[in-house]
This record gives sequence, structure tokens and C-alpha cells, in this order.
Amino acid sequence: MRPSPKWCYAGAMPTRVRDRSREMFRERLAEALSEVFVARGFDDVTVAEAARAVGISRATFFRYFSSKEDAALASVEGSNFDFGAVLADLDLRPDDSCWSLLQRTFRHSLAGVGGATSSQLDQLRMIHATPSLRARLSFRRLQLEPSLTAALVGHGVPADRAHTAAMAGLAALEVAWERWALHESPSLARALDEAFADLTAADKPISAG
Amino acid sequence: MRPSPKWCYAGAMPTRVRDRSREMFRERLAEALSEVFVARGFDDVTVAEAARAVGISRATFFRYFSSKEDAALASVEGSNFDFGAVLADLDLRPDDSCWSLLQRTFRHSLAGVGGATSSQLDQLRMIHATPSLRARLSFRRLQLEPSLTAALVGHGVPADRAHTAAMAGLAALEVAWERWALHESPSLARALDEAFADLTAADKPISAG
Repeated sequence: MRPSPKWCYAGAMPTRVRDRSREMFRERLAEALSEVFVARGFDDVTVAEAARAVGISRATFFRYFSSKEDAALASVEGSNFDFGAVLADLDLRPDDSCWSLLQRTFRHSLAGVGGATSSQLDQLRMIHATPSLRARLSFRRLQLEPSLTAALVGHGVPADRAHTAAMAGLAALEVAWERWALHESPSLARALDEAFADLTAADKPISAG
Repeated sequence: MRPSPKWCYAGAMPTRVRDRSREMFRERLAEALSEVFVARGFDDVTVAEAARAVGISRATFFRYFSSKEDAALASVEGSNFDFGAVLADLDLRPDDSCWSLLQRTFRHSLAGVGGATSSQLDQLRMIHATPSLRARLSFRRLQLEPSLTAALVGHGVPADRAHTAAMAGLAALEVAWERWALHESPSLARALDEAFADLTAADKPISAG
């Protein structure tokens, strides 16, 4: 397995050295497994086959991952990432809306993303093309909602509006990842800008073009 | 099992008589099973136990449902529902935006919802409180997106904007269901209006609010 820089959601690193080592090994394992999934088809390879292909036992696989889906998603999304903390730290500008705060949060958080190799984009495409993986990815994003909502409320947004905006903002984030993975956008930052421009335009009369 | 009117997403009925009978039996089975899940806890009851409680075999259960989650969701959401067809049939008004079209589509489609019994609201609450069910519900809603996007494009919305608006609109729909299930809103129609008002307000400066 080759080491590689963290290229997607950069998770907050666990602090203890043993935990960090374990986490780094888990990430590399996830990358190697993902290459197997991409090459052989996620639905067509069993856990035992994927484990064998990267030189570990099935038991070792389950020491690091709870399922095949878990392994496929581990390499693209740190489970500890907290957008809410980033949003809470933003300075509120006079013309900031919920959309602009969410957009700045995602752009800031994902600034390091973009140097993905073609094999990493292949992974992302596989995830978006596999229903069971896409469902889990959606659900993980849903779990990011409470902290985003709380941070919006901290900036003075009424609670109900904050909740809806966070849910819709995460939907826009999902659109951005998808467009980037499918090469419809040259960078994730550009895809994010476009998705949030779409949200703003969605309130304008259609007949105005 | 008691018969009861279809109270949530009203699915388009299959046309052949045998299919209709099967579908109606499946719905009533789903309702009875949901009562078991609510009473005993979704995660704490096995398929075999739930089947026994409603007087069917495990084999019969799997003739009608692919999983426990499938059974729990079957009673609240017809799998055949096509919001896109409703949206495509709407007459475009001069001031219609993506949000207003989506809001009218959901209101129109879900107009029959609201006469839910307290046991049916219990079901909905159970779904929103159980991560594995909520994940599947989110994913089912995601599958409604392509037809909504296509219908928005049919009304003259650019494809990218239509896609983002459909994804965010479905997120607002999810918020509405949740608020209604949690008794935060007296009706689903009211919850929908509030969620879409939130989307519109999310573009306004926070400092003005």
C-alpha cells in the first residue's frame, strides 16, 4: 500500500499516538481496498476476496471496518469531520445569508481537496454509481446536520430556518461532490460555488430566465 | 389486521387485479408489522418474532418484504409514487420559482395526508428515531430526484439548477415530514409551507432578520 495525502474530508486526527497509528493504517487499508472495489466491481467482490487481495484476513478486515460499505467510504470521508466548528468560527459579514455561511464553511473545510488522482476520482465515481454506497454517504452527511444547525443558530438564525438550511445546504454539497466526481466541474470549489448559485437562483422566477 | 385508508405517500396502484390484491395485502401486513415494531422497539425485534406476532411465517414475510427495514417503511411510503408526473402537469405561473413549483407539487401530492391516527404518527416517529430507517427513507427520497429534475427542466429550468433545486427541495420535504411527525407542526401541509419559507429566507441577510 502506498501512503498518500488525505485528499477528501480531512478528519480531525485522534490525539493519542496509538490511536493515530491505527487510524493511519485504517486509511491506507481503505485506499487499497477501494482500488480492489473499483477494479473488480463493488457488488461483485466479497469481503473475504477483497481482504485476500490486499493481503489481510477477513478477521483483520472486521477489526478495522464494520462492513464492506464502511471500508469503501472510509477512504473518502473522515468520520470525525465537524463542519459545525468551522461554521461557528466564521466572522459574520453584514450581507451573509444561511447559504453564504454554509458555502464558506464547505469551501474552507474542503480547501485541501482538488489534488485527487484519477484513481481517487474513480473511487468517488464508484460510490456515486453504487446505490448502497450512495445511501450511506447521504446518511453520513445527514449526521453532520445537527452541528451545522447549532452553528447557524449561534450566528443568529432562527432554529427552524437553520435546520432546513443545513439540510438543503448538505444536499447542495452532495451535488457538488457528484459533479466534481463525474468531471462536470474542474474543481470541488467551483462545483460548490455553482451548487450554491443554484440554490439562490431557485428562488427567482423561472420565466425571467 | 384492520383495513385503513392510505394515509401517507399514496402510491400509484398497480393495474392488474391480482397485483392490486397483493399490494393491498402487503400494505395491511406492513401496518400490522409496524405496530409490532413501535410496541417492541424496531432494533429489539427480529424478523421471525415480528412475523410470529402478526401470524405469518418468516417465509411469508420474505415473500412480501426484502428486509425488516423494507417492512417498516412500506406502510408510510408507496414505492411507486411519482412526484415528477405531478410537477410536469402543473401550469407555470408568471412568478413561479423552483421552490414554489416543488412546494405546490408536494402539497398537491400529499393533500390526502393529515388524517393520520396517533398510531400512524408513532410509526413515523419511530422511523425518524431509528438511524437505519431514516437512512433508507432518505435514500428512497433521493430516488425521486431524477423525475423531479426532469419535470423542472420541462418547465424551462436549466438542468444543473433543476438538479440542485430538486435535491434541496427533497431535503425540505424531509424536514416537513419530520416536523409533522414530531408534532412540531399541526399538519403536513403547514410543515411544508414552513420548510419552503425557510428555503426562501435562507438567501436573505441574517443581520436583517
